[in-house]
Parts: sequence; C-alpha cells; structure tokens
Amino acid sequence: MKSKLIVQKFGGSSVANTEKIKNVANRIAAAKRLGYDVVAVVSAQGDTTDELEQKALEITAKPPEREMDMLMSTGEQISCALMAMAVSHLGLEAISFTGQQVGILTDEIHTKAKIKKINGQRIRKALGQGKVVIVAGFQGVNADQDITTLGRGGSDLTAVALAYSLKADVCEIYTDVEGIYTTDPRKVKEAKKLREITFDEMLEMASLGAQVMQARSIEVARRYNIPLHVRSSFSKEEGTMIVKKTNKLEDIVVSGVTCNKNEAKITIRSVPDKPGVAALIFTEIASAGANVDVIVQNVSEQKTTDISFTVPKPELSKALAAAEKIAGEIKAGEVNSDKTIARVSIVGSGMRSHQGIAAKMFKALAAHKINIEMITTSEISISCIIKEVQVDAAVQALHAAFELEKIQ
Amino acid sequence: MKSKLIVQKFGGSSVANTEKIKNVANRIAAAKRLGYDVVAVVSAQGDTTDELEQKALEITAKPPEREMDMLMSTGEQISCALMAMAVSHLGLEAISFTGQQVGILTDEIHTKAKIKKINGQRIRKALGQGKVVIVAGFQGVNADQDITTLGRGGSDLTAVALAYSLKADVCEIYTDVEGIYTTDPRKVKEAKKLREITFDEMLEMASLGAQVMQARSIEVARRYNIPLHVRSSFSKEEGTMIVKKTNKLEDIVVSGVTCNKNEAKITIRSVPDKPGVAALIFTEIASAGANVDVIVQNVSEQKTTDISFTVPKPELSKALAAAEKIAGEIKAGEVNSDKTIARVSIVGSGMRSHQGIAAKMFKALAAHKINIEMITTSEISISCIIKEVQVDAAVQALHAAFELEKIQ
Repeated sequence: MKSKLIVQKFGGSSVANTEKIKNVANRIAAAKRLGYDVVAVVSAQGDTTDELEQKALEITAKPPEREMDMLMSTGEQISCALMAMAVSHLGLEAISFTGQQVGILTDEIHTKAKIKKINGQRIRKALGQGKVVIVAGFQGVNADQDITTLGRGGSDLTAVALAYSLKADVCEIYTDVEGIYTTDPRKVKEAKKLREITFDEMLEMASLGAQVMQARSIEVARRYNIPLHVRSSFSKEEGTMIVKKTNKLEDIVVSGVTCNKNEAKITIRSVPDKPGVAALIFTEIASAGANVDVIVQNVSEQKTTDISFTVPKPELSKALAAAEKIAGEIKAGEVNSDKTIARVSIVGSGMRSHQGIAAKMFKALAAHKINIEMITTSEISISCIIKEVQVDAAVQALHAAFELEKIQ
Repeated sequence: MKSKLIVQKFGGSSVANTEKIKNVANRIAAAKRLGYDVVAVVSAQGDTTDELEQKALEITAKPPEREMDMLMSTGEQISCALMAMAVSHLGLEAISFTGQQVGILTDEIHTKAKIKKINGQRIRKALGQGKVVIVAGFQGVNADQDITTLGRGGSDLTAVALAYSLKADVCEIYTDVEGIYTTDPRKVKEAKKLREITFDEMLEMASLGAQVMQARSIEVARRYNIPLHVRSSFSKEEGTMIVKKTNKLEDIVVSGVTCNKNEAKITIRSVPDKPGVAALIFTEIASAGANVDVIVQNVSEQKTTDISFTVPKPELSKALAAAEKIAGEIKAGEVNSDKTIARVSIVGSGMRSHQGIAAKMFKALAAHKINIEMITTSEISISCIIKEVQVDAAVQALHAAFELEKIQ
C-alpha cells in the first residue's frame, strides 16, 4: 500500500539554532515513523536572511537582483543541509535538495519569481527509496538555470506547490504561533484559537494584517484545494485547519477581528464627478509606486465628490505628492492626509448569509465612542478606518460583541 | 581581435570582509579595463568554512558527506554573489556562477571530488557579452546534479581547471603573501621572493610544507602547462611565476629551503630482511589511516635491518599501534617513536645536473652541530630529519650556505 504523503514547512524561527533544528528533526522523524512519506520544506535560519541582505547593502545600495537571489538562496540551502544531517542523526535516511535539484522552474522575475512548473522526479525517487526529503524553501531556477527566489513568504509557497505537485495528503505549516486566532492573543486575552477557517476567511485575515501566512500561498492552496494545517513547531497541540469549507452545519458568522496600524489616509476634495476621473487619480498614484488599499467614494448629488483612500504609512509622502499633482490637473479641491488612522476589520464566511452584521459592528464601536471615518466591505469582511489611538479598544469591543471567546 | 583571457583566483583571506571584496573588485575591474576578458574564481570568506563546519558538528559528529558538500558550497556561493555585486557597482557588467551553472562535472566522491569535465558554455557566452564572470570556487556537481566539493585547496583547482578548459592566457593565484620565497620570510629575514620557479620545484615546496598552494592544483597546471602567477591581493607588485621551464640559461641549483615540524618518527628495529616485509609493514600502517611521508631503510649485511619512517604528528598514536602490531607478527625487534623531530629540505631543479649539493648541505648542517637522523632524496630535493629544536637554525644555515639571499 502506498504511504500517505505529508508536506511539512518549517519557518525561520523554527530552525533558528541547533537546538531548534534538532527539535524539528524529531518531529519529521516522528511523522516518518508513523508511516508517512515526509517532504519537509525549510526556511533560512532566524536572522540569516537579514544578515545576507546586510552584506549586500554594505557593498552597494542597489545590488543586481539576479545576484541577490544567488546570495539569498544560500540561507535555505544551509538550513536544508543541516536539517538532513539532523534527521540522519536520528537513524533515518535523509536527503536535502535545492530548488534547482527539485526542479522548481520559475519565471524570470528575480526576487519575486512565480513558480511555473515543478518536476518532482528526484523527490519521488528519493521517497520511493524510503528517504526523508528536505527541500530548501523560497527558491527555484529559471529556464537558464539561474537561481530565483519567490519573494516574501516564499517557503510557504514552496510547500503548497510541492503538496499540489506531489498530491500530498496534507500540508502542515509550522510556525511560532499555535494557529490562527480570533484576534491577536497578545492584545486580547480572550482570543481563541480557531479549529478551522476557510481559505476565503484566511485570505481576508492575511491581507488585513494577520502575519501567519502570506496571501499568495493561501491563494494557491485555495485554487488547488490543498488543506493547510497551521500549527506550532514547539507544541504537540493541533493548530488550525485552513479548508475550502468548514465542517460546521453553518459557517461561523464572524471568525476573527484584525487590525492594521500601518495605514495612512489621503482625501482629495471636490473631485469633478465624471467618468474616468477615478482612473486618472489611481493611475497616477500607482505610477508613483504606492499601493492603495481601501478606497472610498460616496455617491454624490453635486457635480463634485470627495475621494478617500489609504496607503501604507511609508508610502504616504510619494502618494501625497502624486495626489496633489493629479488634483491640480483635474481641477479638484484640496488634498489632506492623516497618519493617525488605523483599520479594524471583522472577517467571517457566514456574513454572506447573515444580515445585521455591519450594524452590530458599528453599534459596538459607537458604544465605545469610536468614530468611524471610512467604511469598506467585501463579501466576507467589513473594515472601518478609525483613529489609531482607539484601535486596541475597537478590537476588544468587537471581539466581545461577536462573542468570539465562545468560538469552538 | 579576440581579447586575452585571464583567470584570477582569490582566496578566503582576500575576500574576508566588505572592504577586501571591494579591493578585489577593483583589481578585477582594472584587468577588464586593460582589455582582458576576466574570469575570477573566489573562495569562501575568511572564517565562513569553519563556521559552517561548526554548525554541522553541533548537530552530529559524523555528518553525511553529501550534506556537508551541500552546506559547505554555500560559502563560495555567497562570496561569488557579493563579488559580482561589487564589480557591478564599479559600472561593469558582472555575473556570478555556481559550480553547477558553470558545468563543473566531478566524480561521486563527496568532500574530495575530482573534476572530470568542464562545460564552459555559459562562461564563454557571458564573456562574449562583455561580462566579467565570477565563479564559486571549490565546487562542482556529480552526474546526479548533487553538489560536490573538491577538498582542500579546491578553489585553486577550479581556477587552474577553468584556465585549461577556457584556454586562458594566464592564471593568477591571489593570496595573502607576495609570492614564493626562498624560505619563510617570517623566519629568515634574508629570504628573497623568487621571480620564477618550475612546477617541479613548486611541487616539492608544496609537499614539503610551503603553504601557498596545494600540490594537486600545481600538478594539474604542470600536466597541462598552464603558467601560474602567484601574487598578493594587497599589493601591485609582481609575484612569482610558476612555469614549466625557467627562462634562465641554467636552472638555479637550489631555489628554496623548507621545513616541516609536523612530523614524528617511528623506527622498527631488527626487521627480518626478506622480500615482502616492507609491503606488510606499510600496508598495515596505511590501513590504520596514517599517511607515511619519509621512509628510510638501509641496506644491511645482517639478516635483519632497521626501518624508519615519519608520519604527521596527529597520526602518530595510530601509526605506532599499527607498527607494534605488525612488528609482533613479523617477529621484528622493538618499536620506538620520537615526536621531537622535524624535516628540513632544499629544493631546486638544478640539482639534476649538479654534483656536490648533498655534501654541501650536510657540511652546512655539521658546521652548526646539527645531527642528521635520516636522509631522503628526490631528483630535485634533499631532506634531512633532524631534532625539532634545531630546525630554525638549520633553515638559516642552509639559506646562507646556498647564498639564496643573492637569488634574482
């Protein structure tokens, strides 16, 4: 009978030193001894990535991206070799592979390459020989065999893509938290770990500021329906399953509360209300290199309207310059900005079929005298822009209002 | 007209930090701007190799050799990426390659692989595009595309093999000394830098303890007649050319004096003097894992003879155990050992055609009351085993006796 295949991914904090590597090796060996075929994807150790980047920046302010990939990929190569040694030391046969050796073929875009294809031949062969396979995360090669890296969260992506390519039964993402919580447990002591969450919810959580996984990997997992198990490297507890559809009779209405303090708001007043104006504005902002997040434009009965949007705080000044330039060109009114704002959001698949969620959210905020400056909604989330100083209170209030501490 | 091609190799001390990398990049750029095509081979930075080895040994006392190669090869990958950045920063186009990307195909012997073939296609293409090529030294891949390393001095070997494969006009070995000296200039202030030395002489020097280059790379350079220029990364001075035949009308009789304090002597007394006994003894020593260096056996008129040999000091105890075992089996006499010995040698191609060199050596030692315990000769060297405490005086005496301070 063919063994079940498990893909495990261990992040940088899980392999930061010798002791942690040995701990992870024990986990890998345990899965192998339970009868699983195991492919473990590892990130670079702790601060290695920063140290390597520092070396490059000491040499030149703008290192060529091809050479950055050549440099940065060594971090994962080091940890996969060390992990193979640690697993071997436990009496199992283990073999490490680089992205090149595994046949992770990417496009040409250095430092943020996309995976085009995986030729898992060597992995299948090694698994067939009973070996534990350790793969360097975050990296691949382009058609020229030049090393590419996959950008932030790249090791998650390696794991998910391998799980898909190898038809793994499960993909475990090991990290330094116990799973996905209803909100940040460092801030709200009533925060509860979720047993399950849908891909859609997780995507909202990820893009709204929960730091556990990058949105990109979750999107790939959703597209190919690869169940993810997010759990801690340092505990035996089950973590959170990220799945297409939860097993509950009805989706939980609200699964989590997130916040993001890294945003700033820009408002352009008295924008002429005619077709194509919004396109002009956001083309200008985009070409200034700023990532717009929330955009709010109210319907207006005047000939002009106000348009507000948020950008990451570090991009405020360039976005503001672009906004002022375009405002002049389209003969809009004045441009204001505000760095003292933050976003608070509720996320839940159940919102699709439940009424009154928004009202309940706004009421909870009002009860705590929290003024809402902007509102934006998606199918499974509602976000409010509020004053940054009130954001912790807002998270607390919403967590309580939706009784998330009772989530099972 | 085709540009002249220069292969330059920079050792670990030449690229140990950012400042030194920039210094080397300037040298590479200078050669390129003089009109050369440049291929630069780099070693791992300073202590990187030791640090990586330490990481492995913290995990397991006996790391699998395939995984050691996976680990250790990152050191050179890091420095070649950084060097490509530093050269780019000077306004030249530069590209780094791993051993795999260059097509350095080796045998299967991890940690001390031999190069079988170099497919220099990518290098030629990059040179054709006007790029400076930076190659990670010390590494290749086997037929399975597993990373292999070439053992000690492996980066020298990469450089020499590339110089051969690419038909380079010259191969420069940059190091932290100014060239090859008549003897160690830290010990003898009259030591002179040699302008030229033959491969044969250099091989004797290398195996006799001069640390500049490993014998293996010199052998390859000799076999394919690739002139080497050993010089300092930190000075503009010409170094020493290692060539097949020096340009002098007559070879210099003695080119250098070397010594080796890392040896210990074992003597087996009253060995039955019949065919096959020496083979029995040295098979036993070899299978104990000790490297025998000098062997001396005198003709005897008795039915027994004494056999003496030297081994590296760290291998004395296992060699001694093996010697005692075999001495018992062949019914030889007692076995003695002595750790307080050293070797002093003179080297020179001119010995081939000159008489009286040995006599002059022994006389110089005698004049300084230095007793000779063992003597061994090759075509171009004479070595004496003496007391270790007298070795510095012996080097001084021989350097003066052969007037090496007058060498041009």
